[in-house]
Amino acid sequence: MNINIADKLIERIIATKNPSVVGLDPDINKIPRCYLNEIMTKDNGSPLKQVSDLIISYNKDIIDTLAGYIPAVKPQMAFYEMYGHQGVRAFEETAAYAHRKGLIVIGDVKRNDIGNTAQAYANGYLGTVDVPFAKVKSFEVDFLTVSPFLGSESLAPFFEVCKMNNKGVFILVKTSNKSAGEIQDSITPSGCTVSESLANLIELFAKDYVGEYGYSPVGAVVGATYPMDAKKLRNLMPKSFILVPGYGVQGAGAKDIVYSFNDDGLGAIVNSSRGILYSHMTDEQRNTCTKKEYLESVKQAAILMQKDIYNALTNHCSLMKY
Amino acid sequence: MNINIADKLIERIIATKNPSVVGLDPDINKIPRCYLNEIMTKDNGSPLKQVSDLIISYNKDIIDTLAGYIPAVKPQMAFYEMYGHQGVRAFEETAAYAHRKGLIVIGDVKRNDIGNTAQAYANGYLGTVDVPFAKVKSFEVDFLTVSPFLGSESLAPFFEVCKMNNKGVFILVKTSNKSAGEIQDSITPSGCTVSESLANLIELFAKDYVGEYGYSPVGAVVGATYPMDAKKLRNLMPKSFILVPGYGVQGAGAKDIVYSFNDDGLGAIVNSSRGILYSHMTDEQRNTCTKKEYLESVKQAAILMQKDIYNALTNHCSLMKY
Repeated sequence: MNINIADKLIERIIATKNPSVVGLDPDINKIPRCYLNEIMTKDNGSPLKQVSDLIISYNKDIIDTLAGYIPAVKPQMAFYEMYGHQGVRAFEETAAYAHRKGLIVIGDVKRNDIGNTAQAYANGYLGTVDVPFAKVKSFEVDFLTVSPFLGSESLAPFFEVCKMNNKGVFILVKTSNKSAGEIQDSITPSGCTVSESLANLIELFAKDYVGEYGYSPVGAVVGATYPMDAKKLRNLMPKSFILVPGYGVQGAGAKDIVYSFNDDGLGAIVNSSRGILYSHMTDEQRNTCTKKEYLESVKQAAILMQKDIYNALTNHCSLMKY
Repeated sequence: MNINIADKLIERIIATKNPSVVGLDPDINKIPRCYLNEIMTKDNGSPLKQVSDLIISYNKDIIDTLAGYIPAVKPQMAFYEMYGHQGVRAFEETAAYAHRKGLIVIGDVKRNDIGNTAQAYANGYLGTVDVPFAKVKSFEVDFLTVSPFLGSESLAPFFEVCKMNNKGVFILVKTSNKSAGEIQDSITPSGCTVSESLANLIELFAKDYVGEYGYSPVGAVVGATYPMDAKKLRNLMPKSFILVPGYGVQGAGAKDIVYSFNDDGLGAIVNSSRGILYSHMTDEQRNTCTKKEYLESVKQAAILMQKDIYNALTNHCSLMKY
């Protein structure tokens, strides 16, 4: 099974008519009370283990609820790692469970470092690691987000490991937050912005690693909160897949995300995290609802997002493929 | 005990006459064979748990060997996290053990993300996290390395958590690798380089958070491989502590690191990882030596580095404090 992982992602996008990804950002102050009550009645060891078990149980329900409606999930490592190694265990189990349910897993970790250290991150997340007399996998993720701050030398190990192991990366090119431009809009020695320079570099690697649909899993993160930048960057990397944060709670709407797509309605995947998990019930409702009621609200939020994005794309894309 | 953590670090530097930090970068292909043999004779569960137990055992010996000679250690998370949650457990236990031995712990993780996610990393590493009915600590680190690629909004949560919890950060300002300048030398809208702009921002936060010795633990990473940049950046942030990578295996020598220090011989700490752990024995020697022989070679390497740096500083600094 050596299908380019971009093809696999596209096949799931077409099957669900849904180029979106749900961010699994567990927040124990927002997870419904019914989940917390359940975990508090068990003796589960340390508080950090208890919280991690809670997160696993919660995530599995979200995955079961959404598996037929979305192509991918994006666990955000910060919300796991904050609980130490127990939290990282919850991240691992979440990724593995999502895989078993046929979902593409995007590990949102924004890692990087200098050469040999970048190689360790690349091997750990996307390849295999050496143990005595063997090589094993530590994480079951398909794509990884990667920070480019240390330059092209720090990106090369990720590109190589992707090709060898049929995986993908989304390099941070233009993030969705307010202060994104402070560094990312700065001017490089070659006269373009940091974001544009990164887009050129990504396209260079991406074009030799495209799948059947013409896309490469060596891609970029480009926030929907800067639609005109998204349009320009889309053109600089026509073959790269783009991960689009910023939709929903962060302020961008369907009218903004269309610029990250090509005319075939492909080439991008839009993330929503808090907008799907926590925004469709009030705090009070989450404190009193049943699991079933909560999960139904999550499902409806995901369906609403699918419709919103799909409608915008069919209006905007002249060669829509699905 | 609310001593500014910069003061604590300085007191240990003065006591050991050694402004250096040993990077704990475990590499199972370079750890002496005698450690591997020991672990292979025990039944320790999964290969990833075995490797993590090996790393803990190895690190504890390194810490015991060096505790009287160095002020601090810097575990590099990539070399732990590559083994999944078991590896992160080894990172946690290493940090806790180093603390018990009186060493300052610099967690080299280079994390960051947008606002609320940056807050999760800051709380997780430098503060406390919410668990049902309590707040707990996940990691025992004193300082953390942080990436600035997402701009000032992403740095603010770290600065705040540092002040609240008496911790420190080293923001990546100019890294030691070859392609560092691609982004870090780019020109920001205010007309200076990205590195200079970050230095100005750090100094702004640092100057309100100085300890008895006049230094702030809100600091910067500035590679010794760019000594003229180091000199300029040192002047832009006179009160910030600087973590200096690049000495030894990466190519910089004692003549290069002096520019990261102030005239009092303080304000910086120089890292060496591979140069201390793996460079003073050949592969063959590491395959046949006893633990005692290996640890003696590590100690001698650390002492050599101390002398090299201390001599260079006493020649260069007119107001040397120790």
